[in-house]
Amino acid sequence: MTELEQQIQGFLGLLKEISLLEETDALLGWDALTGMPEDSSEHRSEVTSYIAGLAFEKSVSKSMADYLAYLSQHQEELNSELKKMVEIVQKNYDLNHKIPQAEYQEFIKVISQADSSWRKARDAQDFTIFEPSLAKIIAFKKKFIEYWHKDEKTPYDVLLNQYEPGMTVEILDAVFTELREGIQEIVKKINENGTTPTTDFLSRYISIENQRAFSIKVIEKMGYRFTAGRLDDTTHPFMESMNRNDARITTRWDEHNFKMAVFGIIHEAGHGIYEQNIAERFDYTPLRGGVSMGIHESQSLFYEIVMGSDKNFWQDNYELLQSYSEGKLDDIDFETFYKGLHKTAPSLIRIEADTLTYPLHIIIRYEIEKLIFNEGVSVSDLPQIWNEKYQEYLGITPENDTVGILQDVHWSGGSFGYFPSYALGFMYAAQLQHSMAQELDLAAIYKTGNYEPIRQWLTDNIHQYGSLKEPNELIKNATGEPLNPRYLLALQDKIYQEVYHY
Amino acid sequence: MTELEQQIQGFLGLLKEISLLEETDALLGWDALTGMPEDSSEHRSEVTSYIAGLAFEKSVSKSMADYLAYLSQHQEELNSELKKMVEIVQKNYDLNHKIPQAEYQEFIKVISQADSSWRKARDAQDFTIFEPSLAKIIAFKKKFIEYWHKDEKTPYDVLLNQYEPGMTVEILDAVFTELREGIQEIVKKINENGTTPTTDFLSRYISIENQRAFSIKVIEKMGYRFTAGRLDDTTHPFMESMNRNDARITTRWDEHNFKMAVFGIIHEAGHGIYEQNIAERFDYTPLRGGVSMGIHESQSLFYEIVMGSDKNFWQDNYELLQSYSEGKLDDIDFETFYKGLHKTAPSLIRIEADTLTYPLHIIIRYEIEKLIFNEGVSVSDLPQIWNEKYQEYLGITPENDTVGILQDVHWSGGSFGYFPSYALGFMYAAQLQHSMAQELDLAAIYKTGNYEPIRQWLTDNIHQYGSLKEPNELIKNATGEPLNPRYLLALQDKIYQEVYHY
Repeated sequence: MTELEQQIQGFLGLLKEISLLEETDALLGWDALTGMPEDSSEHRSEVTSYIAGLAFEKSVSKSMADYLAYLSQHQEELNSELKKMVEIVQKNYDLNHKIPQAEYQEFIKVISQADSSWRKARDAQDFTIFEPSLAKIIAFKKKFIEYWHKDEKTPYDVLLNQYEPGMTVEILDAVFTELREGIQEIVKKINENGTTPTTDFLSRYISIENQRAFSIKVIEKMGYRFTAGRLDDTTHPFMESMNRNDARITTRWDEHNFKMAVFGIIHEAGHGIYEQNIAERFDYTPLRGGVSMGIHESQSLFYEIVMGSDKNFWQDNYELLQSYSEGKLDDIDFETFYKGLHKTAPSLIRIEADTLTYPLHIIIRYEIEKLIFNEGVSVSDLPQIWNEKYQEYLGITPENDTVGILQDVHWSGGSFGYFPSYALGFMYAAQLQHSMAQELDLAAIYKTGNYEPIRQWLTDNIHQYGSLKEPNELIKNATGEPLNPRYLLALQDKIYQEVYHY
Repeated sequence: MTELEQQIQGFLGLLKEISLLEETDALLGWDALTGMPEDSSEHRSEVTSYIAGLAFEKSVSKSMADYLAYLSQHQEELNSELKKMVEIVQKNYDLNHKIPQAEYQEFIKVISQADSSWRKARDAQDFTIFEPSLAKIIAFKKKFIEYWHKDEKTPYDVLLNQYEPGMTVEILDAVFTELREGIQEIVKKINENGTTPTTDFLSRYISIENQRAFSIKVIEKMGYRFTAGRLDDTTHPFMESMNRNDARITTRWDEHNFKMAVFGIIHEAGHGIYEQNIAERFDYTPLRGGVSMGIHESQSLFYEIVMGSDKNFWQDNYELLQSYSEGKLDDIDFETFYKGLHKTAPSLIRIEADTLTYPLHIIIRYEIEKLIFNEGVSVSDLPQIWNEKYQEYLGITPENDTVGILQDVHWSGGSFGYFPSYALGFMYAAQLQHSMAQELDLAAIYKTGNYEPIRQWLTDNIHQYGSLKEPNELIKNATGEPLNPRYLLALQDKIYQEVYHY
């Protein structure tokens, strides 16, 4: 074995150890949010902090530094996949190496305790219970930003860039303006000339059991494999992937709102399908997961918003839904049903928002995160700011913190700069469909009930690559052009025109 | 800080790391048997083998050796708890240090795969599917016995001693003879003069939902805390404790055999109650878990066999059971019900066996394990030996391997020498009750429906000590004498005389 081969082998071995620890950490996290007994949270936070600490230790170890130094000097002798691994690990090393390990472990402990205080605050509808934890998390993040900062123009850019490489406040301010104006134009047309669809049937009782059975059938058709996944109940739905053969999803239920769970499950299944179809050869390497939050959201939103808003899709599935509704939908014809899915109205809860107004929820969070990191706003002022922005953008004010600032799990997990990914995902998803429709007869596919060609197209163009290609490269290769918000606005206009007849 | 204090602090820190890894490993194991998607088993076996390997590495590390060497030389300066920790860790170090690490990791991998092949073999009712895995496990264990062997008289003694310190083939041959003869005497009395109770009502349909609700109420009364535990479904029931605040139990269900799940859940809850009540100060140390398999079984069997056979207990709970049976038990009076629980008859499945014949199932397994390790019997001959022994001791032959040699999970997990613990547990449990009854008015306690004094007695005498005291010391302190099988035989005689009127 040459020295290069030995170095590569050692490097891959160390990456595998880190992968195994991260997979363990993922299971610990999944369990803490699904089934863990409540008295165990302190013990769990010790365990999680220890395991995450081990992974961190290895990622900033002397061995890692040595491998990176050696392999960077031999870049031209590496194949493209190894080159990419070195690049990702180097970037991660630079990020992590700047945080003292004790500080990082302390942060992980705070995160674990924050989850518990966030849940208590939700139960009590009282932000102040969560406030001290959130303040600690933000203080850590601000210190981290100082450690991480390179040539980003603003502190918040540092965080954005971590979820979507190359993303900046400058770009987002522009994109979100275009998006908001486009949405506002549609909202205006609806308000002036729209015919509001009937929606009372959406609150008819459908048992959790029936909602579950229907949702499972639908996501299996979409391509989610239960032999490599499972579905559990949580307050806030998520997908957690241990590996491509274990990508678990969760949902929450409301027996008088089947739409919430059905679309929530479809959304998380979209994330799961992405992870389940990443190339096997990336196992135990940094290429084994989805490339960015924006691309991940493009997959969940493709299924939820693009497929889930397609009339042809519902023509294939409405009878199935009826069969699981114990007669509750027998008097609702297909047109009424389809239109009822797309009533648009201002709402308080992001994950319950309609397709049209959803991006406004994101823009509010984006602006608040900018205030936190670029303007130094006080944590205790956040509930009021939150409530004022909801009043300003959506014309409604949360009646308590649980349906306001406490609704999302992200901040309690230390995720800032993540929210914009949802809006990027919307735009990517619409753009991907536009391109897919050039190659596939989507209407015909929905008619057959076999959606495999759609899953295959997404696997060919997105899934299989894992983290090998950058977001903009994937989008460019798949669609022939960079990110373009007009496909989303065109899709929205098409859907809402059909429903509201404006 | 003195050098001694520094050494103690370092030692406790290392023990905590090992505890955290073991807790992680426990969760990985629990998940693999409850909810893990099937496609993930290969990935999981990599993860488990890595995490268990890390714990193993630390337990045989140079640092550990140094701490042990130092602290052994300063024994007289340690308090009794630290002294015990050093003793346990030293014993464990001696056990582990003799196995090369690569070999141990390989063993863990084989174990993980064996679980999957055991389940496949069960589905196919075909031992030969499991045979290669079992042969590998036995081969490993035989090599390990050679590494471990000190002054034990036979190879199997080496394994027995690991589950119940001080236990030998010599002792067990004698105890099991006394037990078998005593049981045979009762069986003879029953066969000659007994009146067989009515049991047809036991197979009446009771929904899983109702069985679950009843069982949960009962084990909560017994003292199992769901804030520090949960109940899941598995093929083979077990209790897995991550820590004293997270002791999870599992069961299996049969809607035409409520007795199976109810008593299975009570049994596992007994294990869970033990773990939930170990002293907090033992957290993250080797004292944090139950001391031996025999003492652990004494707790599960106390609840299942001793409390669960008590007429006063059922007088308190029969109405509750009726309320969960949708009228199915309305025509069954209390006497008929109570007697029906205690029909004795030869059966194939250990965990479904009645209280009287259960020890015979153990004796069969004990004898087969002796054959494997002391006589070198061939693995391929085991199903035939199994079947012949069932014919000889119980007068029945399994119709296939799934209800025969494949019924228990233990061997697939590498646990040999474990089974005798169940019979020790029977004897300990009966002896503990005898002593408890000197101090508590058990009949009066059952009448109140508040069993807290019983749980408290067990916590005071057994639970709280974790692994601080040896089995024989615990039994001696709690009952004033060493293990004595006559309390079990007296209990059996009392129960079956009342039921069979012999």
